[in-house]
Amino acid sequence: MADYTLSDLQHGKAEVRLVNVDRSTDTHVLHDLNVTTQLRGDFATAYTEGDNSHVHATDTQKNSVYALAREHGVRSPEAFLLVLAEHWRAQPWVTGTWFAAESYRWERLPANGHSFVRSGQETRTAWVQTYGDETFVLAGLTDLVVLKSTGSEFHGFPRDRFTTLAETHDRILATSVTATWRYAGLDVDHDAAYAAVHAAMTGAFATTHSLALQQTIHAMATAALDAVPEIAEIKVACPNKHHFLVDLEPLGLDNPGEVFFAADRPYGLISATVGRGDAPVDPRAWAGIGA
Amino acid sequence: MADYTLSDLQHGKAEVRLVNVDRSTDTHVLHDLNVTTQLRGDFATAYTEGDNSHVHATDTQKNSVYALAREHGVRSPEAFLLVLAEHWRAQPWVTGTWFAAESYRWERLPANGHSFVRSGQETRTAWVQTYGDETFVLAGLTDLVVLKSTGSEFHGFPRDRFTTLAETHDRILATSVTATWRYAGLDVDHDAAYAAVHAAMTGAFATTHSLALQQTIHAMATAALDAVPEIAEIKVACPNKHHFLVDLEPLGLDNPGEVFFAADRPYGLISATVGRGDAPVDPRAWAGIGA
Amino acid sequence: MADYTLSDLQHGKAEVRLVNVDRSTDTHVLHDLNVTTQLRGDFATAYTEGDNSHVHATDTQKNSVYALAREHGVRSPEAFLLVLAEHWRAQPWVTGTWFAAESYRWERLPANGHSFVRSGQETRTAWVQTYGDETFVLAGLTDLVVLKSTGSEFHGFPRDRFTTLAETHDRILATSVTATWRYAGLDVDHDAAYAAVHAAMTGAFATTHSLALQQTIHAMATAALDAVPEIAEIKVACPNKHHFLVDLEPLGLDNPGEVFFAADRPYGLISATVGRGDAPVDPRAWAGIGA
Amino acid sequence: MADYTLSDLQHGKAEVRLVNVDRSTDTHVLHDLNVTTQLRGDFATAYTEGDNSHVHATDTQKNSVYALAREHGVRSPEAFLLVLAEHWRAQPWVTGTWFAAESYRWERLPANGHSFVRSGQETRTAWVQTYGDETFVLAGLTDLVVLKSTGSEFHGFPRDRFTTLAETHDRILATSVTATWRYAGLDVDHDAAYAAVHAAMTGAFATTHSLALQQTIHAMATAALDAVPEIAEIKVACPNKHHFLVDLEPLGLDNPGEVFFAADRPYGLISATVGRGDAPVDPRAWAGIGA
Repeated sequence: MADYTLSDLQHGKAEVRLVNVDRSTDTHVLHDLNVTTQLRGDFATAYTEGDNSHVHATDTQKNSVYALAREHGVRSPEAFLLVLAEHWRAQPWVTGTWFAAESYRWERLPANGHSFVRSGQETRTAWVQTYGDETFVLAGLTDLVVLKSTGSEFHGFPRDRFTTLAETHDRILATSVTATWRYAGLDVDHDAAYAAVHAAMTGAFATTHSLALQQTIHAMATAALDAVPEIAEIKVACPNKHHFLVDLEPLGLDNPGEVFFAADRPYGLISATVGRGDAPVDPRAWAGIGA
Repeated sequence: MADYTLSDLQHGKAEVRLVNVDRSTDTHVLHDLNVTTQLRGDFATAYTEGDNSHVHATDTQKNSVYALAREHGVRSPEAFLLVLAEHWRAQPWVTGTWFAAESYRWERLPANGHSFVRSGQETRTAWVQTYGDETFVLAGLTDLVVLKSTGSEFHGFPRDRFTTLAETHDRILATSVTATWRYAGLDVDHDAAYAAVHAAMTGAFATTHSLALQQTIHAMATAALDAVPEIAEIKVACPNKHHFLVDLEPLGLDNPGEVFFAADRPYGLISATVGRGDAPVDPRAWAGIGA
Repeated sequence: MADYTLSDLQHGKAEVRLVNVDRSTDTHVLHDLNVTTQLRGDFATAYTEGDNSHVHATDTQKNSVYALAREHGVRSPEAFLLVLAEHWRAQPWVTGTWFAAESYRWERLPANGHSFVRSGQETRTAWVQTYGDETFVLAGLTDLVVLKSTGSEFHGFPRDRFTTLAETHDRILATSVTATWRYAGLDVDHDAAYAAVHAAMTGAFATTHSLALQQTIHAMATAALDAVPEIAEIKVACPNKHHFLVDLEPLGLDNPGEVFFAADRPYGLISATVGRGDAPVDPRAWAGIGA
Repeated sequence: MADYTLSDLQHGKAEVRLVNVDRSTDTHVLHDLNVTTQLRGDFATAYTEGDNSHVHATDTQKNSVYALAREHGVRSPEAFLLVLAEHWRAQPWVTGTWFAAESYRWERLPANGHSFVRSGQETRTAWVQTYGDETFVLAGLTDLVVLKSTGSEFHGFPRDRFTTLAETHDRILATSVTATWRYAGLDVDHDAAYAAVHAAMTGAFATTHSLALQQTIHAMATAALDAVPEIAEIKVACPNKHHFLVDLEPLGLDNPGEVFFAADRPYGLISATVGRGDAPVDPRAWAGIGA
């Protein structure tokens, strides 16, 4: 056992559900977050000997999330994760950190300033991680489900002995977009950037006449980079949520693009990373982020 | 074995995913449904002997959903289930039917008439069931998540030796509304009625100063009945999605209604049925509907 | 609003996760339960006026679950729900109760008496409900997934203009069994009865040469009634988890019952109730139980 | 747009559900897999121009999974993914591949050789990826839920102003193990290795008197390396599935380690990688594997 190496030591509290209400005016501002913390550092003897003298208990990490929310407020998911990063960067035995947040959208009900309905549309995501003094900020969205009922084709692909798919010049294109992007620096209006990416990507999805889901992915990614100069690179992964035209001919009926079967599994899965030429992908920024 | 009784015989196809695109104008109309069929009738020998001569194959039922969508179109979830009911009412050995649909909301993207983003907000539900010539139509909504960050109290409840809960005069009230209602007759504009119930219930949630989740449920149910005279009765079930004020005092901080922990389990669960005095609840209409 | 009727008033705590460890010997005994409580009674003014003077807080109900587990122990899910029923039957304003428990199976690891691995196989279920002095006890199992790779046929079903399904004399039959049964009385060894039903149903599934899933359901239900005389009636609902033989002919290959596609949705859904001739189904026992 | 870089191009079919029945004897052998394929290569013009001339359609990839299962059979998840890797390594424009499989366990029912009950216990996982001629094989398990009702302590951790956790010398330790390991070479009996890892890890969990979940993780990882010399490195990630002793003192009761609340969120999350000294972690082998 003495010969074994030990690496990638991490511990933290996952899925700390924090709802922060800013009541400073009658129009309450809600932040609804799911926060995960991970500390990296000099923790080897906890593994080898059960010595916890360097282990910041995950319960303490949870408490810190709530206490720091009270002390600093929550201005945006990214801003709050940066508060966590500064707090833990200063702690003994911690050499690196990794923080994640999901953020859930609520829309206001018109009656007053304190009533909300949760929008299930997409989930906003954010990550901050540090390596010593270095800090990386990433943001993203997931479960943004979009569909075009026309304006999508798929043909010209190679055929081998296992190919049976017919070419099509008009199909439904539907996907659930997951996009994650890295900000080049720390000086960003994260809420404005998020809104701009959301608008750019949904706009590109709608307006791109698609010859391949790959082409739509590329259009969405470049639209995001065009819209927000602070983004260094963006990864996009999209399932092809197949909507198969039902073959009604055996039932004596035609089906001119009207009746579809929405399939669950299997699904196509397409991804790419698009970056600015002058800002190459930094793999450390993406550690532990399944994007 | 000969002494055993056999009842409640049903078979059908569950979760038929049907997406119907009305392309009659450039502004496409989308219906995205999850349909379940169940036939009741004279099927005993299938159970006792494996004799399928009276068994309408569930594959045929699935085909029928798609074919009837093509033949009749989909005007609303309820209208489509009524088409299914008429079709199966006429088939041999079928004495009753039960149809359900979930309907998923899509919002239009502004770019053109054929691009959509799925709203996760709530799921619309509908049921039609028949007993011979009788037909019942029910509709509902589920997973409508709403929250008030003030305007909710809870006190005055009895205390026994197991009671530890403190009284509160200001708390977060959050729930995920499931409501199901029965229409008294068949002559209803189901889309308009649904929109009216949705508006009435979210409005009542927002404007009711709540002394108990029970009171809010009652306010939502009566608002729905007030808004849509065609509704005979409505059942509402609401989890109390607890948002606990985090006790920051041991951490040396106050917490004046700002930092909350959103809990998953356990949760309160409150329900009621509200009906018009002249239209008592009919249990047959609710068979197999977990409302 | 004064004209509206109010009924089906219920409140309780859902999904109270209780793990009870009997440490009376070195071989610890584990009960892992998910308990839901619901009280029915004289609660109308909570709905109409927000008057909580008759409302047993759901937090108190949760506390009672834990306290009664400590006071009485957990011998079986049914025995524990009966403890809850006796406790709440005696409380003011409560005219009826409804309790449910899911129970999760753990298998012992061989090393010692206190280490376990959770079996995901099936979930055991139990319900107790009371109407005044009357008590109903139901039990069940769910998510018991079974499969036969041969010994299943399906043919002889009627064909209409929407039928395309081919007849088959050898197919995979797979399902996820949900069964719920009512005990005629209270004097039952619930653990032994559960084990006997489990053995009877899996045995009947395996040994029945199946001409229809209906026939297999009937065989499983009657085997359970044969095995446990205390059961008055049993409801069984089974999805037909379709395993479609992949058509490899277009790829130049045969497929003699070897390569299958396991489909998710849609699925057939078949159900029935089987009872003893002398003990007819009592609908009140089944209220609120989606079986 | 011309300045943007394009990288990490992948496409494939996700979650192809393949059930393979070996019927060569009356004792049927079942493999139940969920397979995902991903191809990497010279696909840029699909993204930039919608040119699909190099795009192996994901539908073809799905067909290939089924056809290759028929041609080569399924001996083990790893062996089957290696068949896929050889097939796609030879295709034009493909420079690398990534394949994953989940494998679901079925136990035999005693009645005959073709009846099974699905064990929900854990899911077996496998990955094969290629970079040109290089091949990496990884295997793992996930959702292996284990619990010790004693033999676990946690104390000696540092305390700061946000620490409130009490030290404990006897607690429940429960987790859901995810482990992923890389085989140094291709010449491995994968089924035997999997069984040995499973036995080693559950054994180490049971027999380790735990002063920290970290220590238990280390013990499980080193036990796996001890048991299977072909493993070069293993990553283990474990949520701390908290079971909190319920404080019954306010209810007038003691609670000597008997009544627990099983919490959902938040949960501790601890991980580590353990390798042999002579076989350092190769990051390429782990690309796209969220371990």
